[in-house]
Amino acid sequence: MSKINLRDKLAKFSDHWSPKVIAEMNDYQFKLVKIKGDFVWHNHADTDEAFIVIEGEMKIEFEDKTVELGEGEMYVVPKGIEHKPYAEEECKVMIIEPRGVVNTGNTEGELTASNDEWV
Amino acid sequence: MSKINLRDKLAKFSDHWSPKVIAEMNDYQFKLVKIKGDFVWHNHADTDEAFIVIEGEMKIEFEDKTVELGEGEMYVVPKGIEHKPYAEEECKVMIIEPRGVVNTGNTEGELTASNDEWV
Repeated sequence: MSKINLRDKLAKFSDHWSPKVIAEMNDYQFKLVKIKGDFVWHNHADTDEAFIVIEGEMKIEFEDKTVELGEGEMYVVPKGIEHKPYAEEECKVMIIEPRGVVNTGNTEGELTASNDEWV
Repeated sequence: MSKINLRDKLAKFSDHWSPKVIAEMNDYQFKLVKIKGDFVWHNHADTDEAFIVIEGEMKIEFEDKTVELGEGEMYVVPKGIEHKPYAEEECKVMIIEPRGVVNTGNTEGELTASNDEWV
């Protein structure tokens, strides 16, 4: 493999809420995603999910709190916990989770992205 | 859990080659490490290992090539592959790998750090 430059990879797509795989480690994937506006409430029954903000600001709403993340901040959403990502302005995020995780978890719908799309 | 600010965590330690755990995702750990100078040749027989440069520049030497990484660049070292990290000046790095991985892999020695040390 070659080294991966996060900003170069981010320059290769512009759609929102559609994670792109940039690397794999064992059976885990590193994905980049641009988010803007409201996502859907969902959970991932079988896995935790890590978010690292590369640029911009986002929120993750939970049933009992809201976490605000800026550049260089991260959060691990525990498996099974309902959450809803949100960004007022476009935010660029790295997600790390096992291969095969669907972005909308248990809530399939309009925002469900095709999986394993590389950039 | 609370959100994790990478720069705040990096400000909490100054030793080199001694990874500090900042978060867990399933049975994986996110670690921060400050590196400077030469590490030892080693490999991890059972797992890939992901490096993301947060600040500074580092090299990863392999038997057949050298990869240079700057801020915002990442590389996944495949399992079983001999490698030697190096940084001329201090470099701040995030490592992602399964819980329990020893920093020096198969090459125990002076630079072997105690494991599962949180910051």
